[in-house]
Amino acid sequence: MENNSKFATMDDVARLSGVSKGTVDRVLHDRSGVSEKTKKKVLEVIKEIGYMPNVYASILSQKRSYRIIAIMPYFQKGDYWEMVYDGIMASLEQNKNIHIDIDIIYYNQFDVGSFSKACSHTLALDPNAVLIAPIYKKEASALVSTLSELSVPVVYIDTKLDNSNYLAYYGMPLYASGYLAAHLVFDGKEIPEIVNFNVDRGGAAPNDSMINRHKGFLAYIEEHGLKCKIYDFSMMPYDFMYNIKLFESFFSEHPQVKHIITLNSRAYIISEWLEMRGIKDKKLLGFDMLEKNMEGLRNGYISVLIAERTALHVQQGMQALINFLVFKKKPVIKDNLFSMDVLNKYNVDYYVASNIKENVEQENTTSVLTE
Amino acid sequence: MENNSKFATMDDVARLSGVSKGTVDRVLHDRSGVSEKTKKKVLEVIKEIGYMPNVYASILSQKRSYRIIAIMPYFQKGDYWEMVYDGIMASLEQNKNIHIDIDIIYYNQFDVGSFSKACSHTLALDPNAVLIAPIYKKEASALVSTLSELSVPVVYIDTKLDNSNYLAYYGMPLYASGYLAAHLVFDGKEIPEIVNFNVDRGGAAPNDSMINRHKGFLAYIEEHGLKCKIYDFSMMPYDFMYNIKLFESFFSEHPQVKHIITLNSRAYIISEWLEMRGIKDKKLLGFDMLEKNMEGLRNGYISVLIAERTALHVQQGMQALINFLVFKKKPVIKDNLFSMDVLNKYNVDYYVASNIKENVEQENTTSVLTE
Repeated sequence: MENNSKFATMDDVARLSGVSKGTVDRVLHDRSGVSEKTKKKVLEVIKEIGYMPNVYASILSQKRSYRIIAIMPYFQKGDYWEMVYDGIMASLEQNKNIHIDIDIIYYNQFDVGSFSKACSHTLALDPNAVLIAPIYKKEASALVSTLSELSVPVVYIDTKLDNSNYLAYYGMPLYASGYLAAHLVFDGKEIPEIVNFNVDRGGAAPNDSMINRHKGFLAYIEEHGLKCKIYDFSMMPYDFMYNIKLFESFFSEHPQVKHIITLNSRAYIISEWLEMRGIKDKKLLGFDMLEKNMEGLRNGYISVLIAERTALHVQQGMQALINFLVFKKKPVIKDNLFSMDVLNKYNVDYYVASNIKENVEQENTTSVLTE
Repeated sequence: MENNSKFATMDDVARLSGVSKGTVDRVLHDRSGVSEKTKKKVLEVIKEIGYMPNVYASILSQKRSYRIIAIMPYFQKGDYWEMVYDGIMASLEQNKNIHIDIDIIYYNQFDVGSFSKACSHTLALDPNAVLIAPIYKKEASALVSTLSELSVPVVYIDTKLDNSNYLAYYGMPLYASGYLAAHLVFDGKEIPEIVNFNVDRGGAAPNDSMINRHKGFLAYIEEHGLKCKIYDFSMMPYDFMYNIKLFESFFSEHPQVKHIITLNSRAYIISEWLEMRGIKDKKLLGFDMLEKNMEGLRNGYISVLIAERTALHVQQGMQALINFLVFKKKPVIKDNLFSMDVLNKYNVDYYVASNIKENVEQENTTSVLTE
């Protein structure tokens, strides 16, 4: 765009072409009712004076409406998936002036049948784009394959299906996050025994993200020539008494075990038990910035959390879909790997404050845009 | 803004008021040549249909020019201050469509006289706004006091002068960053001896940021009841041979010291020496994402870095000044404390990639804005 053309308007184009603004608009939107000769003249003037139509206003006036569907587990307040929900809501807010319908289809993350139903439901709604965390691999793969045939763009969050057709992926590097977790626990030194509390998924197979994280964790131990006995147990996320009994029985039998890991977002289940019992000689590592996990960091019952800016990245994933639908722009980077942020008692609050601040900055930008 | 008024244009206002667009424009900009009666009518219509003038375009057409001065040390490629420079340049790029002159006045960070000259030079240029890292407290304070009398807004980066009049501050929490550093070194356990390599500032007093970071470091040790002998030495940033001799002599005398810290950005001076000598039994902690520090992390001669997104935050600081000058908007948060990011060999590259990605996202937003 030439510097001197910054203020060229549609009026200028109409005046210099000797046609009405309506005709200029018709040419710009490639609509019928304009002779080839007039069209040529208008396009010449546009080129000459460097007129740039206001794409944003033009999209607003199209009144074209898009339906984006996000498929995600339903959640309780404070769960990991609430941050995903927050990201989707932030995107909705950011794009409130564009005609976008964002529908969320929920499923039970511990029930594959429920996930399959969500997939059928999605197809029945004839979406223009889909955001999904493909935690049930086979079923998600079938859905994405059908969407691909229908030319519906898909954005993955959390984990991706490599052999599928997708627009973009936003997630933490999973294998690397397990490797990092092991580094933070071991730091290259021998630890004779640790305990790993998984999450029981009601009989469902562990999903790719957990498998890869676990692989990364074991790889660190092997590659550093460390010997460590790892006890593996499963917590029941919504069965308080089951978990208490699990911890009591494990630690009465193995009081010498000082290191606890959980490669998922449920560290607070353990930290709350440690706090209840006043047990201060354990080091607990977990994942994700849930409010209860942060509380565990602050009060010293969680030593370290590996976190990501979930809501921000989900918002970026939604934006990738919107940019593709509305502005025909593909994301600059297809596989967007988040940074893995190492949090402890002494930096957690600055991390939280800085997250809020960046959101505020984004809002400022948007408000300028829509003024 | 009412939903149904989204598409109201200046044409609509003119039509409904029975006046020309020129008259509407005159009313909007409060210019003369419009009768009180017409003005009243136009304002009524504007209110009724909820017309919002395009503020951004209106500012473009004002052709008002602003001069912002950033005062900073000159630097060599790869220095900390290069990241500050990058942030200023990013801001310039982001605002290329607004009439903003950004001038940088450089000084020698090891010479207070040079800093004083930069301050006088700044005043002589009659700036509309100033960005400054007040590392020479007394001199910076005098400058800011004069600017305040002239109603020139000031943004601090790196460190701030509490008893002064400033628009906003963007910086790492300094005391807390020292405290965090000590936590990462000690993790609550005894370490008998460590060595701290400062940076010699050519006889200048250490600046507030270093003093506060150092205080935080010592506070952790004291509050955790740890006993530790700390050896303090100063490196000469640009005297390679001096540093080598310093390290050789210290470690031949104290081979038992395994923990090294440097509370500034020059960790690479030490890691390069460790690498040269093939010394692998030391743990080195440093600050800031310089390319050479990252190299130290990657090759294992630096254990941990505490980093911040310097360029991004300097860019935010510049934006605070621009929003204030151009849009009359004060920053939502006055004191913006960065998150303190804990980096090691296993997460550093994802952090770097994620920084780049966020910048790309920002560019996308801007391109929508200016299309």
